[in-house]
Amino acid sequence: MLLDETTLLAMRWDEDGLLPAIAQDANTGKVLMLAYMNAQSLRRTLETGQAVFWSRSRQTLWRKGATSGHTQRVIDIRIDCDADTLLLLVDPAGPACHTNAETCFFRSLDDFSAAPERL
Amino acid sequence: MLLDETTLLAMRWDEDGLLPAIAQDANTGKVLMLAYMNAQSLRRTLETGQAVFWSRSRQTLWRKGATSGHTQRVIDIRIDCDADTLLLLVDPAGPACHTNAETCFFRSLDDFSAAPERL
Repeated sequence: MLLDETTLLAMRWDEDGLLPAIAQDANTGKVLMLAYMNAQSLRRTLETGQAVFWSRSRQTLWRKGATSGHTQRVIDIRIDCDADTLLLLVDPAGPACHTNAETCFFRSLDDFSAAPERL
Repeated sequence: MLLDETTLLAMRWDEDGLLPAIAQDANTGKVLMLAYMNAQSLRRTLETGQAVFWSRSRQTLWRKGATSGHTQRVIDIRIDCDADTLLLLVDPAGPACHTNAETCFFRSLDDFSAAPERL
């Protein structure tokens, strides 16, 4: 699909031009990760069929799996009612998390509270 | 569970003291909505077992379903690897969306592009 100007303007980008994008495994239904997209990363995602995010820490486009090989093939993109969040249904080539866990949400808040570390 | 100071400090709140919180139906696996939590709303969620968010537009605590009756009973709370996003597994008492759709993500980006409206 093409992303025209009207569509882009109707989306509710934040003050940094970003939207949160949830990646969900289309096969298992597991929520894998949350990252951010700007218009350029969304365009690149649509063009390539692979999830491309915007890295807020590195301030650069970030093709998921570019270094790890754990890319995410995009099956469908959904947008919520007020157009400020995206949901990507993906077919992942490997673990989503940099810890090699299948999903970044592998800890319960209880577990985190017992050992409150950012990984 | 109790939310101690060490746990709160290890979580990566944004400059407004918020974290995005994804609500997922624990029964169907459907991603229902994304909202935001501050420490107070997370504490209230833990105390009551019902999802309580922070409304950014109204700048107030917002117990999901307070007016619609479509509350969300919280089954589990997960936190991602770098502790900047929450995932709530919930048992919803009704549709998550103010449009009465089961999930706020009822439109594909294609559908949205054909009729780009915030609902």
